Parts: sequence; structure tokens; C-alpha cells
Amino acid sequence: MNDFSSAELIYYVDLAGTFVFAVSGWLLAAKKELDFFGASVIAFVTAVGGGTLRDVLIGSTPVGWMQDVNYLIIIASGMFAAAFFRRIFEKLRKTMFLFDSVGIGLFTILGLQKTLDLGLSPIVAVMMGTISAVFGGVLRDTLVNEIPLIFRREVYATVCLVGGIIYLMLGQTAINDDFRIIVTISIIITIRILAVVYNWSFRAVK
Amino acid sequence: MNDFSSAELIYYVDLAGTFVFAVSGWLLAAKKELDFFGASVIAFVTAVGGGTLRDVLIGSTPVGWMQDVNYLIIIASGMFAAAFFRRIFEKLRKTMFLFDSVGIGLFTILGLQKTLDLGLSPIVAVMMGTISAVFGGVLRDTLVNEIPLIFRREVYATVCLVGGIIYLMLGQTAINDDFRIIVTISIIITIRILAVVYNWSFRAVK
Amino acid sequence: MNDFSSAELIYYVDLAGTFVFAVSGWLLAAKKELDFFGASVIAFVTAVGGGTLRDVLIGSTPVGWMQDVNYLIIIASGMFAAAFFRRIFEKLRKTMFLFDSVGIGLFTILGLQKTLDLGLSPIVAVMMGTISAVFGGVLRDTLVNEIPLIFRREVYATVCLVGGIIYLMLGQTAINDDFRIIVTISIIITIRILAVVYNWSFRAVK
Repeated sequence: MNDFSSAELIYYVDLAGTFVFAVSGWLLAAKKELDFFGASVIAFVTAVGGGTLRDVLIGSTPVGWMQDVNYLIIIASGMFAAAFFRRIFEKLRKTMFLFDSVGIGLFTILGLQKTLDLGLSPIVAVMMGTISAVFGGVLRDTLVNEIPLIFRREVYATVCLVGGIIYLMLGQTAINDDFRIIVTISIIITIRILAVVYNWSFRAVK
Repeated sequence: MNDFSSAELIYYVDLAGTFVFAVSGWLLAAKKELDFFGASVIAFVTAVGGGTLRDVLIGSTPVGWMQDVNYLIIIASGMFAAAFFRRIFEKLRKTMFLFDSVGIGLFTILGLQKTLDLGLSPIVAVMMGTISAVFGGVLRDTLVNEIPLIFRREVYATVCLVGGIIYLMLGQTAINDDFRIIVTISIIITIRILAVVYNWSFRAVK
Repeated sequence: MNDFSSAELIYYVDLAGTFVFAVSGWLLAAKKELDFFGASVIAFVTAVGGGTLRDVLIGSTPVGWMQDVNYLIIIASGMFAAAFFRRIFEKLRKTMFLFDSVGIGLFTILGLQKTLDLGLSPIVAVMMGTISAVFGGVLRDTLVNEIPLIFRREVYATVCLVGGIIYLMLGQTAINDDFRIIVTISIIITIRILAVVYNWSFRAVK
């Protein structure tokens, strides 16, 4: 029954997250009426920006996407899908939000685990997990000169931090790895939905 | 007759490209009335920005220009030349355009070859070649708050991508390395001139 | 009497500099009315931005602050101190300026020495020292959309360059390491104060 190993499961969900990020980058670029070249750059940077910064900082180079051509193929697929089925993706906003949340959750866990595997401390690992998840979106917004929706981004990042800490704490229990990943991602999705529904925000520092 | 090896030829043309990039950075900074320190930073970043990002991403550190003091000397020379002979460089616009095109072509090939030599895939190599060639100019424009001339930059990058692919394809033939480099650069120059003359552009993604 | 080794002295002053930089980042963020998350990011980036860029460029990864949890603790302390004692820090402007100058001087020396230790040339070492000292502040100003006070930053960087060169020259003398560090930092502080008092600036390049 259990043909997938944990590593295979992570790999496929990682590709799915990359696909969703590429789609979201392309859609924003199209909304801003960028040309083909600009939209490709935005889609690419959104999909790999976070993992790239993490890899550069922890010294895991050549950076991840260079070492597995499937990432480039899945990003190109995301771009084509976004270009040809734009209407459909725009109608599927809730589905996209769900995929995006799964992607974020998984990118957090992957970045965190990769950093731990290098022997770095858990707190650095949580930071790197968060950067993996949010920096692609930060770059996307910056490059299209979108005034960053501070609220959205901040909850975004806080959700990743919380998710990362939960993932670390679950690692101290007897829970198995697959279940640990699923629980963490479920919590991340739940917090994000609650944050949107109840319009959570932080006060300005004064 | 053939005293130069292919590697020596590449090295000298690389220095020439670096010189031209430093000049172009300084000239733009001077036009923007930056002070001496700002102009030096812009000239330096224009000259080495692309290769630096490539080296960081592929993990070839310390980055290239740190390991050969000739690059710093040539950049300083470019800055002095631009400062003292500014009028002349501005009159030599067509010559500068030619050198710039040669530099771009060569930076593409050098970045591509360096990436291939690390065992990375040809598609990643073409991307790294393009980044080597265009990222210095992207940084320069961003730092002086120039609204990027999207058209110019895009054709710029597309030319590098096409040049990189041609270089890879020629690598499958019996053609020798010197000739392969010269043919690729010639094609890149030709496409750039055609692009300027015929005002090529891309449609916005909609 | 001399319980501290030179390395220990440097380490503690480095932590002090990191603390001051975190405070200055938080204070600017608070002035701009950023929220808690934004202010944390700015404080962190101000404190470690320069050393991080240096480490990435010279290939000393994982970057420095990841390998010693004391840096994260001191940054968090700086943030809390800035949040709770903001009035006090704002009254202590001259004290902060002094600490900031000491921090800058020390970051320059540390970055320079780390680069030399990798076998890179003195000129590259001076550049890396300067980047270590000023890039955190550049990132801070850029992220809060502060129009960079060109004058301030330029003298800032020039002071680091001059300090770095003096440090290198003192290395050719019989002077001991502790004294060499103290002399260099004293000179950097003196030049900065003179620059502020006499309002030194550079002419625009024309």
C-alpha cells in the first residue's frame, strides 16, 4: 500500500509547489502587461528565488534547481499552463490558494531539513525554511514594483516560522516522518486560512 | 603564426569586455551626476556584476575577479579612461556598441563554458552565460534608478540565449574552438545590430 | 593583567558592533512605523548584511552568523533594547555614533583579515572589509525606501577604505596586533567625526 517513501512524497509535492509558484509569477506578470521575456523571468524567480537564496547562504552550491532538470521542466510547464489557461487559473483562486499554502508549507520543511542536515542550529534552520518559502514571492513583488502587501507577506512569513517550530517540536516525538510533514502542512494551511478570514495583522512598532 | 592559444585569446577579449563595461558604467554614472565614489561603485558593479552572480550561484568562490588582480587593474583603467576621455567615448558610440557586443558575446560563452566545466546541464549553462552577460547592466540600471529600457534589455538577453544555444550546437560539430567562438560572437553582434536597426520587440503577454 | 587575547577582544567588540547595528536598524524601522515583523527583518539585515555578502562572495559558507548562536542572541537583545528603551537610545545619539564608528572600524578589520586569511590579495581584502562594514546599512536604507544620504554613505565607505589601508600598512611594522586594531579604529573614528564636523563631501563627476 505504501509505495511512496517519504522522500519521494516530498519530491513530488516540491515539484507541485514549484509549478504553482511559477504559475503565480506568470499571472502577476501578465496582469502587469510584461512581455514574454519579463514574464518568464518573473515566473522563474518566483519559483526558485527562495531556495536559491537559502542554498547560497548555507553554501549548498551549485544551487538546487541546477542539479535536477525536472525543476526547469516543471517551471516551463507552469509558464505554459498559465499562458494558455489563464482564465481557468483565475477562476480557481481558492484551489490556487490551497496549492500555494501546501507549497509554502513544504518549502518551509524542505529548507529547514536541508539546513539541519548541514549541522546548523534549529533556529537557523527555521529561518532558512522561512526564507525558502517566502523570498521567491518577495522578489516577484519587488521586480514588478508591486507595493508589497505588508499584511499578507508578514502573516505569510509568520506562518512559516510557526510551522517550522511545530515541525521541529514534532521531531522530538515518536510520530513518523510522513505524518509529521502532513500535520505541519495542515497547520500552516489552517493558520493561513484563519489569517485571511479574520484579517489578522500586527500593530506598527512605535 | 598562431602564437595565441584559444584560452589566451579568450582571456584578453574578456579583459577588453570588462574594460568596456567599466567605461559604460562610469559614463552612465557621470550622466546622472553621481560623485566619484558612486561612479566607481557603478563602474565596478557593471563590469563584474554578471560574473559575480554566476559564480555565487554555481559555487565557484571566491568569485572570479578576486583571484586575478588584472581585472581590478583593467576596471580602474576603464574608470580613468572614461573620466578623462569622456567626450571621445561619447563620440565613439558605434565603436563602443561594437565592443559592448563583443563583450556580451564573450561573457556569454565564458559563463556557459565555466558552468559546463562544473558538470552542470547545457540548459543551465546557457542561463548562466546569459546572466554573466546581462546582470551587470541590470544592476547598473537599477542602481542609478534608470527605468530599465525593457526593449533593449530583453533583446540583449534573448541575443545571449540564442548565442549560447548556437555555441552549444557548434560544439557538436568538427569546428575548432577559436572559430566556434568567433562565429558565435559574430552572430550575436549581427542579431544585435539587426535588432537595433529594425527595432525588434516582443508583444506583452496578455 | 592581560587576560584577553587579541582574538577574544575582537570577538567581544564584534558582538558589540552587531548589537549597535541591530539597534540602529530597529530605530529606523520604528521611525518608519513598520510592524514588528518588518522591524525585526530590518534590524537583522542591518546587523548581518555586510558580513553575509562578504562571506557569500569569498565562499566562506555557511555564512558567519549561522555558525555562532551568540550573534542571533545579541541581535535579539538589540531589538528588545531598542523596542523598550527607544527614548534613551535617541537621547544617546553621540554615544550611539561612537559605538557605530567602533563597529564600522571593527567590521572593516574583521572582514579584511578574514579575506586575507583565505589567501586573497590585500586590495580585495580592503574591498571586502568595506563591504562588511557598510553593506548592512545600505540594505537597511534601501529596504525602508530611505533616499540614501549619499554624502554620509560615501564618507562612511571612504573611511573604511582608508582605515583598511592603514591597517594593512601597520601590518608591515613591528606594532603588535591589539595596538594595531586600536590605532586603526581610533583613526576611523577621528576621520568620521572630522567628516561630520567639517561636512566633507565629494564633487560630482562631470
